Amino acid sequence: MKRVMLRVAYDGTDYCGWQREPGVPTIEGVLNEALSGLLGEQITVIGASRTDSGVHALGNVAVFDTDTRIPPEKLSYALNSRLPDDIVVQESREAAPDFHPRHCNSTKTYEYRILNREFPLPLMRRYVCFYHRRLDAEAMARAAGYLAGTHDFASFCAAHAQALTTVRTVYECEVERTGELIVIRVRGAGFLYNMVRIIAGTLIETGIHARKPEDMPGILAACSRSAAGPTAPAKGLTLIGIEFEEGMKT
Amino acid sequence: MKRVMLRVAYDGTDYCGWQREPGVPTIEGVLNEALSGLLGEQITVIGASRTDSGVHALGNVAVFDTDTRIPPEKLSYALNSRLPDDIVVQESREAAPDFHPRHCNSTKTYEYRILNREFPLPLMRRYVCFYHRRLDAEAMARAAGYLAGTHDFASFCAAHAQALTTVRTVYECEVERTGELIVIRVRGAGFLYNMVRIIAGTLIETGIHARKPEDMPGILAACSRSAAGPTAPAKGLTLIGIEFEEGMKT
Repeated sequence: MKRVMLRVAYDGTDYCGWQREPGVPTIEGVLNEALSGLLGEQITVIGASRTDSGVHALGNVAVFDTDTRIPPEKLSYALNSRLPDDIVVQESREAAPDFHPRHCNSTKTYEYRILNREFPLPLMRRYVCFYHRRLDAEAMARAAGYLAGTHDFASFCAAHAQALTTVRTVYECEVERTGELIVIRVRGAGFLYNMVRIIAGTLIETGIHARKPEDMPGILAACSRSAAGPTAPAKGLTLIGIEFEEGMKT
Repeated sequence: MKRVMLRVAYDGTDYCGWQREPGVPTIEGVLNEALSGLLGEQITVIGASRTDSGVHALGNVAVFDTDTRIPPEKLSYALNSRLPDDIVVQESREAAPDFHPRHCNSTKTYEYRILNREFPLPLMRRYVCFYHRRLDAEAMARAAGYLAGTHDFASFCAAHAQALTTVRTVYECEVERTGELIVIRVRGAGFLYNMVRIIAGTLIETGIHARKPEDMPGILAACSRSAAGPTAPAKGLTLIGIEFEEGMKT
């Protein structure tokens, strides 16, 4: 028996998120089915990040235990031939037997992408949030700067979420405009439910000058969902990658 | 009665190309239907480039005649609200009454995009040709350089195509690698059927050193489809834009 780690990229458009749910397509469900079929064992993966419906990933992480003799690093090729083309394993390798991707320290990087121009672009429509009013990316970047650090992010947490604490540490929150594309990049040790999308919605309101960058400390201090902006659409959000600080022997 | 020009972007994945054909979804068919519904007249657009099934566009051009009182430059907004999200009009304006987008001199720019890495990326899968063997982009660029100029491109024309002459002028054929993405950019006064995709297929063979860059003059001189490489998949091809040299009074 060994534990195998997968780095998984997916287009979340046609899935009801990561987490398995009966009767609806989920990333976890498709991975379990493909792995079980390939290995002839009942496989249940554990995901590092249970991304929401419609959210994408370049590097989510899943682990599972198997008795297979297929070398772990070869599994990606065999598995990809059984997966639909909107889910592609980017890497497979052996992990420590006690490695659990949600029970160890990690840094997650998310990007929220906004296409800011007069008309949407069909080739980007599945992967960006389209916004036609001109956004002031510099104001957004100044507002984002207030979010770095350890704060109570209760204002940036979906109202119905269940979390023991709403204190989180954000290492970096940056906004960069490249032509018509604005990318909000957030790195942190963990995120509350909808946190990055509520940050994006609040920064968009800052970008149209409906809020000032200097309002951000007050929004944080309010510790109330109603103090922040709307939840931006899922399709603009991509989990870029996860770095684990411990527990990986590979 | 006035003539209106549309600049149209589309994701060709789910269409059987530009040209109207009964019983199958085409870009032209969807535009005709949306325009006819919006304007209350029977509208038939004329396209500048009748792109193939699966080929994308950022800036294809269509014209049509209408009696509407809606100002031409406002039509894009009204039309987009009736179009599916994989077809988006980027601009609408009045054209000269005798402007015909296929009967005047123009320069078309196409890009063929190749994702060159070990595994496909789900977020790019609809818009690139995936190729896992390492491609030598410098060799491809040298080979591409031989294609600029006025040549008989019979070797780069689909065997069953009907064209009065296979002589065409290519202003520019460049290959550039940016990380894992290789872009073949071709500008020309007109292209034969499948020409850019056969150029791409031949350059890919050059990229894996199955052909030498210096073979290109011989491939041109052969004037035979069998001298060139395979036709690369449609999904990597995007019509970037068209510049008209005359006939536009706007």
